[in-house]
Amino acid sequence: MGERIRVAVLGAQGRMGSEAVRAVEAADDMELSAAVDRDDSLDALTEAGTDVAVDLTHPEAVLGNLEFCVRNGIHGVVGTTGWTAERLDRLRGWLAGSPGTGVLIAPNFGIGAVLTMRFAREAARFFESAEVVELHHPNKADAPSGTAVRTAQLVAEARREAGLPPQPDATSTALDGARGADVDGVPVHAVRLRGLVAHQEVLFGDEGETLTIRHDSMNRGSFMPGVLLGVRRIGATPGLTVGLEHFLFDGSDAAGAGAVAPEAGNG
Amino acid sequence: MGERIRVAVLGAQGRMGSEAVRAVEAADDMELSAAVDRDDSLDALTEAGTDVAVDLTHPEAVLGNLEFCVRNGIHGVVGTTGWTAERLDRLRGWLAGSPGTGVLIAPNFGIGAVLTMRFAREAARFFESAEVVELHHPNKADAPSGTAVRTAQLVAEARREAGLPPQPDATSTALDGARGADVDGVPVHAVRLRGLVAHQEVLFGDEGETLTIRHDSMNRGSFMPGVLLGVRRIGATPGLTVGLEHFLFDGSDAAGAGAVAPEAGNG
Amino acid sequence: MGERIRVAVLGAQGRMGSEAVRAVEAADDMELSAAVDRDDSLDALTEAGTDVAVDLTHPEAVLGNLEFCVRNGIHGVVGTTGWTAERLDRLRGWLAGSPGTGVLIAPNFGIGAVLTMRFAREAARFFESAEVVELHHPNKADAPSGTAVRTAQLVAEARREAGLPPQPDATSTALDGARGADVDGVPVHAVRLRGLVAHQEVLFGDEGETLTIRHDSMNRGSFMPGVLLGVRRIGATPGLTVGLEHFLFDGSDAAGAGAVAPEAGNG
Amino acid sequence: MGERIRVAVLGAQGRMGSEAVRAVEAADDMELSAAVDRDDSLDALTEAGTDVAVDLTHPEAVLGNLEFCVRNGIHGVVGTTGWTAERLDRLRGWLAGSPGTGVLIAPNFGIGAVLTMRFAREAARFFESAEVVELHHPNKADAPSGTAVRTAQLVAEARREAGLPPQPDATSTALDGARGADVDGVPVHAVRLRGLVAHQEVLFGDEGETLTIRHDSMNRGSFMPGVLLGVRRIGATPGLTVGLEHFLFDGSDAAGAGAVAPEAGNG
Repeated sequence: MGERIRVAVLGAQGRMGSEAVRAVEAADDMELSAAVDRDDSLDALTEAGTDVAVDLTHPEAVLGNLEFCVRNGIHGVVGTTGWTAERLDRLRGWLAGSPGTGVLIAPNFGIGAVLTMRFAREAARFFESAEVVELHHPNKADAPSGTAVRTAQLVAEARREAGLPPQPDATSTALDGARGADVDGVPVHAVRLRGLVAHQEVLFGDEGETLTIRHDSMNRGSFMPGVLLGVRRIGATPGLTVGLEHFLFDGSDAAGAGAVAPEAGNG
Repeated sequence: MGERIRVAVLGAQGRMGSEAVRAVEAADDMELSAAVDRDDSLDALTEAGTDVAVDLTHPEAVLGNLEFCVRNGIHGVVGTTGWTAERLDRLRGWLAGSPGTGVLIAPNFGIGAVLTMRFAREAARFFESAEVVELHHPNKADAPSGTAVRTAQLVAEARREAGLPPQPDATSTALDGARGADVDGVPVHAVRLRGLVAHQEVLFGDEGETLTIRHDSMNRGSFMPGVLLGVRRIGATPGLTVGLEHFLFDGSDAAGAGAVAPEAGNG
Repeated sequence: MGERIRVAVLGAQGRMGSEAVRAVEAADDMELSAAVDRDDSLDALTEAGTDVAVDLTHPEAVLGNLEFCVRNGIHGVVGTTGWTAERLDRLRGWLAGSPGTGVLIAPNFGIGAVLTMRFAREAARFFESAEVVELHHPNKADAPSGTAVRTAQLVAEARREAGLPPQPDATSTALDGARGADVDGVPVHAVRLRGLVAHQEVLFGDEGETLTIRHDSMNRGSFMPGVLLGVRRIGATPGLTVGLEHFLFDGSDAAGAGAVAPEAGNG
Repeated sequence: MGERIRVAVLGAQGRMGSEAVRAVEAADDMELSAAVDRDDSLDALTEAGTDVAVDLTHPEAVLGNLEFCVRNGIHGVVGTTGWTAERLDRLRGWLAGSPGTGVLIAPNFGIGAVLTMRFAREAARFFESAEVVELHHPNKADAPSGTAVRTAQLVAEARREAGLPPQPDATSTALDGARGADVDGVPVHAVRLRGLVAHQEVLFGDEGETLTIRHDSMNRGSFMPGVLLGVRRIGATPGLTVGLEHFLFDGSDAAGAGAVAPEAGNG
């Protein structure tokens, strides 16, 4: 007692929220202090002595929720999207007035997805060629996925910084679309297949060798280890943190890893 | 002695031909009777008592070569391309006049590639979704590869015969090219990466499961087992055979497998 | 009316059975005539005018169920295991007395798994090397999976029939277990990883090329397309059929595919 | 003139050495100053104004070569193995007497292999499960490969440091060898297949997701980009550096990456 982190879930009846409730309840070092949804009062958080609030609500609700939390010294772990520079500034203002409180905003709580992006960015400058293949269920509306586009952008950025020339490609006759979508010079291919969930491969190639980083996400539960990791760390990280990667890697290079922007989404 | 098959290689100094010379010399059950190239006389074949001629020359040379071989009762194993209905008819005419002689024309001697196409065609009707991803070195001129296009056509054909509806795909916003090239309703994606040689994946998906058939070809040597298999079998197969698959599978269903057309190429 | 197949599910409250109930209800060409479990009377089947009974019960229950069905002219589609030669003989006896009735016993209803085994058996004789890697969740009790063992046996059998020598392997110093389990000369490796469900790769290699057949099963729902296929075909297939592959492939070679024995299990 | 790095290759007639000669000749920013083998005098290096010597010789030759180079202010890039603590100390002594000179000893020049080990080490602490599958041609004598063993050790070390419990594995009945070799608690599986060259997969899994890092090395040429990178950087890196990873990543965490020990080998 006293040892366990008291965690409230906001948006507790949503798809992600209900997973979070289950994950918190199953974690040995946490207990659920409150599970609130849209019509519930936030007072439940303070009454229950909440340490950390996990916000998985909507862009319209999240700012009000965080204002309440920060003013009451409750840390926030936020998966809700819709963050603009202006909104982030307002949040920073509240945090300035509550110096011991921390908020983590993570556009993607999938640890595997965040690692994939980081490793892709690190590997990019060592290889002549780089392409991204993402594979999803056929009900997905966008192609490529936001994560694949973001990954390709990170790879392109690292190639630019390293002064790499454009990728080699002798294609002279091609069917339309065969070579994929061009994202800042990095080809991205989107496969849609019944039976798949969410998968991504980043392929790098140089003379005589290739390196492939593949992430397979089988279900929504795959975001929960990232949420719990955020809950465990946020108490020791006052102020605003954007991107789960800051909690995955310590030291000087965490800043660079922050290149994953808040608008990337979990897509 | 007398037991080994006496094999001549035509086009012996070309890239494929020189591999074939090496492969024949290394095979326990064969011996090289002649290695001829463009300026050499075909008489070398008859003088050396050749049983089987392997033709890896050019479209302009192959007809003359085969006319000579068939008239002299030498069986042919042919990787040279450029076959039209009219050319095949001329060849059939010669064979009609030399009843014990056989000629195999194989657009693709890669056993793995032929198996991939066959399995893809067989699997196609059981899955809601099917896509092809081919991956090659970046010096390749065409995208997708001829083999990938042919594979997609076989899959599309099998889907049509089974009465399958169009593939599910809810994509509503996409970057140009993201969903690949459309080959008869089957998306085909072409990756070009330094370090790769020639690779192909055929992906099938249905509710809760996927099946992937992948072929990796590391070098030109991968065609040689197919050439040798052709050499071993052609003596017992009079007449014209188009497609190595007829020698890979026996019985009634070989005919269906013949769906791999002579124009597919080894690409 | 009259057009749709009237399907009863036996073992309707079990894990597989409840999936089957859902799948039958969702199929346009079927309707659920009865959903019975251990304490329910089988008379519900006849009263509801059942065409096909899907048995997903237990070895102790299945024989009694099938005796009732066959005597009443109800076709059977059976996933229940525990079949011995003696039990199959009894079933054949009942079927002999009811000439228009058919029963399908399928140890594995996963179409992808059945195709993988079939393709593996067909490809085996063309490659010097063959290994199996299966990958499952870490709660699985047996290693390798029954399906992987069965696949390796089929590959070994095909190699023997083709007169292939033992696989090349120059390993002279090895850590215990590094080269996997030896199943009739085919190495089988079992990976256990949180996040996985049920996956299998069959790898074939020859000079310069490899062929990989991979099956990924994401959930129990993946067996339902196979169950429904059995329901659709059994009415036109009197007598006993063992193995779903007989309904996947027509013609003379179906017999050979029957090499998948009833004791293989869905594991 | 003056701008290009003048590079000598020692062991120029060996397999790796002859590749290095070709690679240096093909690099725009280098020129080959000398190509020496076992009976040639090292004076050729000084006479030709060599900046960097690439040593790809034998454990018996390398120490003498480096003593000569360091005393003459020639930087060294060394792929030769056989380094002991005592040998490294002797080399450090020579370097202390020639303050501007640098030597890089790299047990593995494959950039992809080094990245794979680094990423594996970084990812390890975030996942409940981790296994290694390495795949090689069947002429390889050891199983698993030295690189796979080293990778598993790095993963095991990172798991220990993060306080992770043993991996979940409910296997209760297994065939001998099915679960691979146990390297510090990390299962390692070795596949041997004709047609393969050198490949490695590191698999990580947690609830609902997996991360796979795969490295494919198609030929010896794959080590050359790493050798050239060493040549380009060593001039600005006085003293002894062990491990190519120090040149791949800058800043504070390079030290940690140095965990790849000199005895790992290119296997």
